[in-house]
Amino acid sequence: MIGACGGIGSTVALGVAALKRKLTSPVGLVSGLPEFDRLGLVDPGDLVIGGHEVREASLVEAIRGMHLESQIISAEVIKACTPALRSMQKNIVPGIAYGVLPAVVKRGAMTRVRKVSSAEAAVAVVRDDLASFRRKNKLDHVIVVNISATEPPMKRHAAHASYAKLSKAMSKAGGSVLPNSALYALGAFSADCSYVNFTPSVGMDVPAVEEFAADRDVVYMGRDGKTGETLLKSVLAPMFAMRNLRLMSWVGHNVLGNSDGANLADPAVKVSKIKSKDQLVRRIVGYSPQTHTSIEYVPSLQDWKVAWDFIHFEGFLETKMNMQFVWTGSDSILAAPLVIDLARFAAWEYQSGRRGRMDHLACFFKDPDGSREHNLFTQWTRLMEHVQKFGGDG
Amino acid sequence: MIGACGGIGSTVALGVAALKRKLTSPVGLVSGLPEFDRLGLVDPGDLVIGGHEVREASLVEAIRGMHLESQIISAEVIKACTPALRSMQKNIVPGIAYGVLPAVVKRGAMTRVRKVSSAEAAVAVVRDDLASFRRKNKLDHVIVVNISATEPPMKRHAAHASYAKLSKAMSKAGGSVLPNSALYALGAFSADCSYVNFTPSVGMDVPAVEEFAADRDVVYMGRDGKTGETLLKSVLAPMFAMRNLRLMSWVGHNVLGNSDGANLADPAVKVSKIKSKDQLVRRIVGYSPQTHTSIEYVPSLQDWKVAWDFIHFEGFLETKMNMQFVWTGSDSILAAPLVIDLARFAAWEYQSGRRGRMDHLACFFKDPDGSREHNLFTQWTRLMEHVQKFGGDG
Amino acid sequence: MIGACGGIGSTVALGVAALKRKLTSPVGLVSGLPEFDRLGLVDPGDLVIGGHEVREASLVEAIRGMHLESQIISAEVIKACTPALRSMQKNIVPGIAYGVLPAVVKRGAMTRVRKVSSAEAAVAVVRDDLASFRRKNKLDHVIVVNISATEPPMKRHAAHASYAKLSKAMSKAGGSVLPNSALYALGAFSADCSYVNFTPSVGMDVPAVEEFAADRDVVYMGRDGKTGETLLKSVLAPMFAMRNLRLMSWVGHNVLGNSDGANLADPAVKVSKIKSKDQLVRRIVGYSPQTHTSIEYVPSLQDWKVAWDFIHFEGFLETKMNMQFVWTGSDSILAAPLVIDLARFAAWEYQSGRRGRMDHLACFFKDPDGSREHNLFTQWTRLMEHVQKFGGDG
Amino acid sequence: MIGACGGIGSTVALGVAALKRKLTSPVGLVSGLPEFDRLGLVDPGDLVIGGHEVREASLVEAIRGMHLESQIISAEVIKACTPALRSMQKNIVPGIAYGVLPAVVKRGAMTRVRKVSSAEAAVAVVRDDLASFRRKNKLDHVIVVNISATEPPMKRHAAHASYAKLSKAMSKAGGSVLPNSALYALGAFSADCSYVNFTPSVGMDVPAVEEFAADRDVVYMGRDGKTGETLLKSVLAPMFAMRNLRLMSWVGHNVLGNSDGANLADPAVKVSKIKSKDQLVRRIVGYSPQTHTSIEYVPSLQDWKVAWDFIHFEGFLETKMNMQFVWTGSDSILAAPLVIDLARFAAWEYQSGRRGRMDHLACFFKDPDGSREHNLFTQWTRLMEHVQKFGGDG
Repeated sequence: MIGACGGIGSTVALGVAALKRKLTSPVGLVSGLPEFDRLGLVDPGDLVIGGHEVREASLVEAIRGMHLESQIISAEVIKACTPALRSMQKNIVPGIAYGVLPAVVKRGAMTRVRKVSSAEAAVAVVRDDLASFRRKNKLDHVIVVNISATEPPMKRHAAHASYAKLSKAMSKAGGSVLPNSALYALGAFSADCSYVNFTPSVGMDVPAVEEFAADRDVVYMGRDGKTGETLLKSVLAPMFAMRNLRLMSWVGHNVLGNSDGANLADPAVKVSKIKSKDQLVRRIVGYSPQTHTSIEYVPSLQDWKVAWDFIHFEGFLETKMNMQFVWTGSDSILAAPLVIDLARFAAWEYQSGRRGRMDHLACFFKDPDGSREHNLFTQWTRLMEHVQKFGGDG
Repeated sequence: MIGACGGIGSTVALGVAALKRKLTSPVGLVSGLPEFDRLGLVDPGDLVIGGHEVREASLVEAIRGMHLESQIISAEVIKACTPALRSMQKNIVPGIAYGVLPAVVKRGAMTRVRKVSSAEAAVAVVRDDLASFRRKNKLDHVIVVNISATEPPMKRHAAHASYAKLSKAMSKAGGSVLPNSALYALGAFSADCSYVNFTPSVGMDVPAVEEFAADRDVVYMGRDGKTGETLLKSVLAPMFAMRNLRLMSWVGHNVLGNSDGANLADPAVKVSKIKSKDQLVRRIVGYSPQTHTSIEYVPSLQDWKVAWDFIHFEGFLETKMNMQFVWTGSDSILAAPLVIDLARFAAWEYQSGRRGRMDHLACFFKDPDGSREHNLFTQWTRLMEHVQKFGGDG
Repeated sequence: MIGACGGIGSTVALGVAALKRKLTSPVGLVSGLPEFDRLGLVDPGDLVIGGHEVREASLVEAIRGMHLESQIISAEVIKACTPALRSMQKNIVPGIAYGVLPAVVKRGAMTRVRKVSSAEAAVAVVRDDLASFRRKNKLDHVIVVNISATEPPMKRHAAHASYAKLSKAMSKAGGSVLPNSALYALGAFSADCSYVNFTPSVGMDVPAVEEFAADRDVVYMGRDGKTGETLLKSVLAPMFAMRNLRLMSWVGHNVLGNSDGANLADPAVKVSKIKSKDQLVRRIVGYSPQTHTSIEYVPSLQDWKVAWDFIHFEGFLETKMNMQFVWTGSDSILAAPLVIDLARFAAWEYQSGRRGRMDHLACFFKDPDGSREHNLFTQWTRLMEHVQKFGGDG
Repeated sequence: MIGACGGIGSTVALGVAALKRKLTSPVGLVSGLPEFDRLGLVDPGDLVIGGHEVREASLVEAIRGMHLESQIISAEVIKACTPALRSMQKNIVPGIAYGVLPAVVKRGAMTRVRKVSSAEAAVAVVRDDLASFRRKNKLDHVIVVNISATEPPMKRHAAHASYAKLSKAMSKAGGSVLPNSALYALGAFSADCSYVNFTPSVGMDVPAVEEFAADRDVVYMGRDGKTGETLLKSVLAPMFAMRNLRLMSWVGHNVLGNSDGANLADPAVKVSKIKSKDQLVRRIVGYSPQTHTSIEYVPSLQDWKVAWDFIHFEGFLETKMNMQFVWTGSDSILAAPLVIDLARFAAWEYQSGRRGRMDHLACFFKDPDGSREHNLFTQWTRLMEHVQKFGGDG
């Protein structure tokens, strides 16, 4: 996990430990549904957790903080899993922050950063760390999941066109032609690991990076886990479409209090997130109602996110009506099981010999790489067909 | 239309007149979606409107009341369509209320009721009215749509088992073995008309009545148009299921101010409606979260209905979260285009030579006769398959 | 405290212990506002806790249950205060349930009930318990607070007219002319204790009981603590009045999951509560908008209460507008500090030599005995005047 | 009225005409409450309407637009008042836009602007227009109400310190030391008219302007009419304070679709409005919870404004709870009666011989000039005391 000791990462770790100890149920895990029983997915408790983390942070502290400040996860479960978390912590190493602005490094309290002199060197650090993690833990396969802080939108660069150009540009000191999420992706692919981009950052969605990935023996997919407000949009917008009710405007207002929220308080970063959230309605209904999405950092909410959406629509005889919803969810609690799901599905695909971009898992993402399909049900049907085709005798 | 001069009926009439005059768009009409272009459905403006009405009421007055009290439908459109509404009014005749309790007759202001001495005679009245309507207007086929006030749940009776028994029971004076919605259904079938039950009343959903229907050359379907809160449930409950989020409780509170609301203030009637609304979540998710649905009559809302739903669910690691929505819709405006849709689809099925219960149109109903499938997307897929199969070259 | 080991009682006990140990702040305590600094109120930590409880229940278990099931109150605070709670438990004795129907006794799991042969004997039990509690703990004064389960509305009886008649009726075996809340009140007054009725039950609001109270050297007040939805009504209704916006309807829908909720699932009991909540708007605005209040028991919510209010109002030029609110509060957490407040204020009044009904504390109650003033600000002004008059040099 | 043909101005005009013809009731008029009966306020129907307007706009068109697009005000009332509105239109003349940026002039469609060569000349135009209006209509007194589009925050200038300096600066061509709202105020005072600033623009709140006003025989007050979300804050924040519930954060999200909304889409302007809305909570509770207010322009809403507020607060034992409200109001319908109220009160003050700033009318304003009291009840008490003192024998 890239950003392993944040809210999501620590919840994934705790969840895996708790599932192993049968201290919790698979509620919240998509891969725990009976539809997937026949696939023989890896047991969540058998996943080995490791990662990169650039902040002074630990899984145990992060989880305790969530219990105390966000009133989630029972003290008993935390207590029982603390030794396991401490053990997992040994697999978490300092990360890279190559080319990140000093102000961002400071704001993000990135004190555990590996010094490297070029992008190429940064990729090598990641590659070696992953290889070492696999070796030490005697693993069949490693799946890298990006759950680190969202980056500002990537600036296009001529070197993005091919891996040859990119490789050359990355070898130069000082240059930063790729954001860190892409450097991690390259590091993962170099080490023959699979890669899941759970954030709105660019990840492997750069032609040169995908070119490189396609040549390796790996599985990859992204981007931006679909957990709350956007998940709702992906079932509500189709409903309006199926009833021929014309959306006039859809305004979404999100407030949240965790470090994701703090990070999004940077307008440059917020742009990435809002772009990821904002286009979906348009793509589902096929025309352009006014949409507005805002995200505000409200520290008192801690890990909780509250979204208010106001949906203004026109019905028969030009009648204006509206629907509003309020979604109150714990960000990490919603995201963590999906990370476990994606690791399980990626492992299954890999073991089954399939490679490349896993488009049939689009239902997990706000802005699925390589797909413009956002309707949750269509996405689900696609996944069911895949399971039907490759799921074996069941 | 049974109950032709209520909110829905008058909106259907106005809508048909406005569509014919190109004064409004097909927004709100499902049958207006491009998916159905290839079917060559009857033009809504070519539908000929008629009906039964037991109250002193007229289409023009009803529509004007909605404009003045509910602030819906523009005065210009009403003005332009008033002559057409007056002309349609000539096709609206007094109805039956056989076996209805005097208190209900009084409460419902049922002053235009045809006196009959037996259920059999009531059916004959309906049959003759429909035949006369078809003859006068030189129609190919007549589709009867029940949009009258919801009845209390039907009491079971031994005569419901077969048409032979029912027929015998109905010939006796004084007895009332069937509610009016079923008498209308029998009347419709006797006259070789199709029948759509848009209400929670029983309609044709009695073995003996279906037996009779199956022998006739007709199309039928029901029950209870899915317009607002329940429509939302039918996309939200699947979303929770697909994410393996466990519903703990789902509380829905509806307030509305039209005559449907006034009628539902009778606890006996409310039972029918709530039953129709309440079972859906359970059937979609396959287990039984606590559900509670209440409906209150709030006259100041007039034709508007406001529903607040509180959905309490459990996510990963036993975390309790919630979603709430508020739906603010005009009841008649939401229902009327679906009535037009069902008439168009029924006409197409009839013309195409298909007969019997139209199970593929379940997406239009809260509690589809003959189906336990409530997931809107599954229902929609079923409809699309039907269109694919029977839609011709497109 | 009558009903000492319920959600409110256990939170009061924990709160007093935590305040004594400086483990929490006075947030939520009205009496902790600077306006009351000059009064020299008793320190909350110096209050000695005791009570009656008819169920197998303990303070420690109740508090732990709230932590585990409702995610409130930190585990650290609970741990630190557990010895204090155990010590308080010694002052909690079995209670009376004289004349309570066996079905209610069973539903309420009332297993720790003192057997008595007449209402008079029940009163004597309470009186003796209170005297014993005062003696053992060497207290200056005891204030009895009723926080037990709401009773059904009291049936009127001729013996309520005077204490002489009442006394005679109560001496008879088998008769039950008063509900338990009134028997407790009589017991309290007999032992020269003050009495606060924090529930919608009748308490001392019976002419004969008040007659008795007036002769004793005590302080008393009630009824039904104003904590959530009703508190909001008491500031919002005045706002509409001050702007001359005409309320057409005010619908309130409450869902809650604690034992108060379970108790209110009994329709007879619900009547008491709704009556207490429903009249307030009318009294504030001086006319009768349609009001509707519903309360539903939703166990998954545990100690949390969610209220949705829909307020439909008319503005200038007959324009209909609306306001909605959703209140999400923990019932016990909102109520407990007010119980501590009332104990502190009652103690101060008593020590200052004032006696009788404390009408200036009406701002604490949904339905203040002896007052029809419900506007929170007017009530507050009244309290401020009292403080000004009797607060000393400050 | 400055900005006479906008939503508020046209609703004021229609309202006055409708009240004169007894076509509507005084609902929504604060001055229509029985508390003010004794004052003998001028009858709203006797107010003579006039104003300045810089856009191609008319009262009749504006009102018809509101009826068609916002579904407010009945067609019948509009029809009956149209001749009166046309007659009022004759009293509406082109306005000034001195020093307004060309881009703003263009955006605001300010096509009816009087050309002047200096601020002094602009003031003279206003003064002469007002004198002419008074003369033509034989009026006792003229009250100028600013309801024009909100200006960006005023830049401070040395000339604001005294009228002598200001006067000198204003005589120079080209310079723009004051925004238009202040030029109108000076024009009004020069013509011995009273001035009410109903917007967040600066109006007379400049030392030099107030110095000038104090020397004239007039009445003045402002700023920013308190109509919706802020009105609610002014009763809810005191409630939290009275219960010692600690506000942690208060987030308000407003969406609206009228020309006020379009104007606020300019970030420079939005600053003025948000400042006016955002400080109130802090001033009422005496500490600084996190506050955030956003305003978005959603054209489909037309004259309707929807505000969602999320209030996060801490109760006893550090428990976090929340309250949310949604306010759905028609902006013009809420504001117009307050404009009429302020005109009536200003006229009464003037006729009674009182002069200067009317601080006791603070309850009408979001950000009352000369007051930091925002609690609606305290403001109301102040107004009641004033009425008590000066209201005569009643």
